[in-house]
Amino acid sequence: MYSVNVRDHFMIAHSFDGAVFGPAQRLHGATYIVDLELRRPALDADGVVVDIGLASSVLREELAAFNFRNLDDEPAFAGRNTTTEFMARVIFDRVAARIAAGHLGAHASGLESLRVTLHESHVAWAAFEGPLA
Amino acid sequence: MYSVNVRDHFMIAHSFDGAVFGPAQRLHGATYIVDLELRRPALDADGVVVDIGLASSVLREELAAFNFRNLDDEPAFAGRNTTTEFMARVIFDRVAARIAAGHLGAHASGLESLRVTLHESHVAWAAFEGPLA
Amino acid sequence: MYSVNVRDHFMIAHSFDGAVFGPAQRLHGATYIVDLELRRPALDADGVVVDIGLASSVLREELAAFNFRNLDDEPAFAGRNTTTEFMARVIFDRVAARIAAGHLGAHASGLESLRVTLHESHVAWAAFEGPLA
Amino acid sequence: MYSVNVRDHFMIAHSFDGAVFGPAQRLHGATYIVDLELRRPALDADGVVVDIGLASSVLREELAAFNFRNLDDEPAFAGRNTTTEFMARVIFDRVAARIAAGHLGAHASGLESLRVTLHESHVAWAAFEGPLA
Amino acid sequence: MYSVNVRDHFMIAHSFDGAVFGPAQRLHGATYIVDLELRRPALDADGVVVDIGLASSVLREELAAFNFRNLDDEPAFAGRNTTTEFMARVIFDRVAARIAAGHLGAHASGLESLRVTLHESHVAWAAFEGPLA
Amino acid sequence: MYSVNVRDHFMIAHSFDGAVFGPAQRLHGATYIVDLELRRPALDADGVVVDIGLASSVLREELAAFNFRNLDDEPAFAGRNTTTEFMARVIFDRVAARIAAGHLGAHASGLESLRVTLHESHVAWAAFEGPLA
Repeated sequence: MYSVNVRDHFMIAHSFDGAVFGPAQRLHGATYIVDLELRRPALDADGVVVDIGLASSVLREELAAFNFRNLDDEPAFAGRNTTTEFMARVIFDRVAARIAAGHLGAHASGLESLRVTLHESHVAWAAFEGPLA
Repeated sequence: MYSVNVRDHFMIAHSFDGAVFGPAQRLHGATYIVDLELRRPALDADGVVVDIGLASSVLREELAAFNFRNLDDEPAFAGRNTTTEFMARVIFDRVAARIAAGHLGAHASGLESLRVTLHESHVAWAAFEGPLA
Repeated sequence: MYSVNVRDHFMIAHSFDGAVFGPAQRLHGATYIVDLELRRPALDADGVVVDIGLASSVLREELAAFNFRNLDDEPAFAGRNTTTEFMARVIFDRVAARIAAGHLGAHASGLESLRVTLHESHVAWAAFEGPLA
Repeated sequence: MYSVNVRDHFMIAHSFDGAVFGPAQRLHGATYIVDLELRRPALDADGVVVDIGLASSVLREELAAFNFRNLDDEPAFAGRNTTTEFMARVIFDRVAARIAAGHLGAHASGLESLRVTLHESHVAWAAFEGPLA
Repeated sequence: MYSVNVRDHFMIAHSFDGAVFGPAQRLHGATYIVDLELRRPALDADGVVVDIGLASSVLREELAAFNFRNLDDEPAFAGRNTTTEFMARVIFDRVAARIAAGHLGAHASGLESLRVTLHESHVAWAAFEGPLA
Repeated sequence: MYSVNVRDHFMIAHSFDGAVFGPAQRLHGATYIVDLELRRPALDADGVVVDIGLASSVLREELAAFNFRNLDDEPAFAGRNTTTEFMARVIFDRVAARIAAGHLGAHASGLESLRVTLHESHVAWAAFEGPLA
């Protein structure tokens, strides 16, 4: 299996609901350094997994939807805790939708699965991985 | 599959038995930077893989059993080489036992597998991963 | 010159005032990974720059004053932009005050200067350094 | 499953053929930081996955075949784009052949699979992983 | 003293002239991960060292002059070895000229010195630092 | 000022004497990742700060004197605590002596100062820097 990974980041405010979160129930924030890993079993005719320039652009665009925002104000997340693992899944779903819509180009047709990792600090990170539809 | 990773470290002395180890047969030591990755297929009602504070505490407690010690003096390791890969398995088993004993809380009931990675330098590391019982 | 560095982190929300900040004028947040470097020209009788355990504890305590908070709500920062470079100076001053108060112990008497670096992402950081009074 | 990883690097020139590569169609170059991960289900009698000294030596020897070279001049790569993912597979195949030839020693007999990752920058990397024959 | 650092990278081919370079006399290449540190003794009215967005853009523009190129073909470098330390100075001079030309904006008027670091691998880097004219 | 940095590592056992060290009074160990930074105000005729291959070799040779050893057994350190900052100075002095003896070659004649940093974990490091005689 081949894979390619591109890295970017976004910076958000949010708060959590539930005693398990302790002081993180207060409004605070995070820098999320994001790794997007794209996988396929064989390379295409150009010898690549994906057009890495397009992959970087699509990741940047999807992160821009949240960058410099308070996630508590996002209607789509109402009633949900925007934990690192939850946001990893959100980014996964958004990138998967862009791939399904053809936005990563012809190169992306052979992609089989993705892994999205969000690093919240030098000592903690979370990920979601799964097959593409 | 979702995963969450927490990082900590411990510092030990030890020596190895066997010609394959060359100069590492002498008493020496290592800093092990430890990554504990916990995995489950779905998030719980709070939107988390695990109570990350509890996971960090349990990891710290298990590493404390070895931190600032000479592993050659540990009766449990008599006759064994405490290589990086061997110690990754030891940490795996100890954390798995803590999960089985309920020490990671109700959040941990859905955990499916773990990966423990021990970084011994900027150019070498070892890991053990497997399912939880 | 000798130096010792300890690393920790804190997570905050804030917003900036001024057109130069663009989208960062909105409420957002950051993880700050903090490096505290302590310097002195000679080691003490124990062979150390400082009691590294105490240095780590004092840094952790000072970061706890801001961790999981919205800096826009801090009276001390009213009318100020809590940029990365500004916060580096804030941490510098707070640690310097703790040293002056003797909280780093007898070992700290020979300290000459500090450098505080705040990493806001994998591609941007800021620092403040200067002599101790 | 156990794994051990060793890291090294090599520095090459090359160019790509195809409009998808944009400015990378020009002759340029890269530093590839290489991670070689070797996996096996059980440790051997010495308590190791592999003789890590031998693994490091074999990796260094295989990278030396390309280090400080222009990949456009390598007959073996004629008509191929030496992308990061392509080169990950090349290193995989070369290391796998060395294992098959017994060059990693008796310790390597239990190896089941490899993963080779090439980091081309702090924001992009590619990998190939698969079973050993 | 305050400082702000931004990071980017560029990828080039080149060769060196002189027996001291050994195999690096052959045409090869490198990824240079670049850190640009900008320093000033006091913050401006906005609480910043520099407009970090502008600093990132100017760095990117200057690196674009060399990105995906063979430095052996650059007339400006004829008869010179484009070593990592030499290129650090080249980037320093180009960014300093942009600052002198006012391209970093009013915020940059208080800048006192720069440091440019080029990382050529995980085990080697070089830098040039000095005052601004 | 120009600088070049090379990185290597060594692994040792030791113990500390003094209540300030707490559990580190027990026999334990560390991996030290070592950065050797060499500085000079101008490049030589080849465009380098130093022959980086020679610098790497000399660093490796000096670390080999301690690698895979128990520092408590070294006569030269009797009655001293081999703390990270102390060892940074030891490595500094040994490399400086090698430079004075001409072992870094003609390229090293212009070297003005060194900085030696020992990373003992992902959250702690120490350094010694100073002029060359």
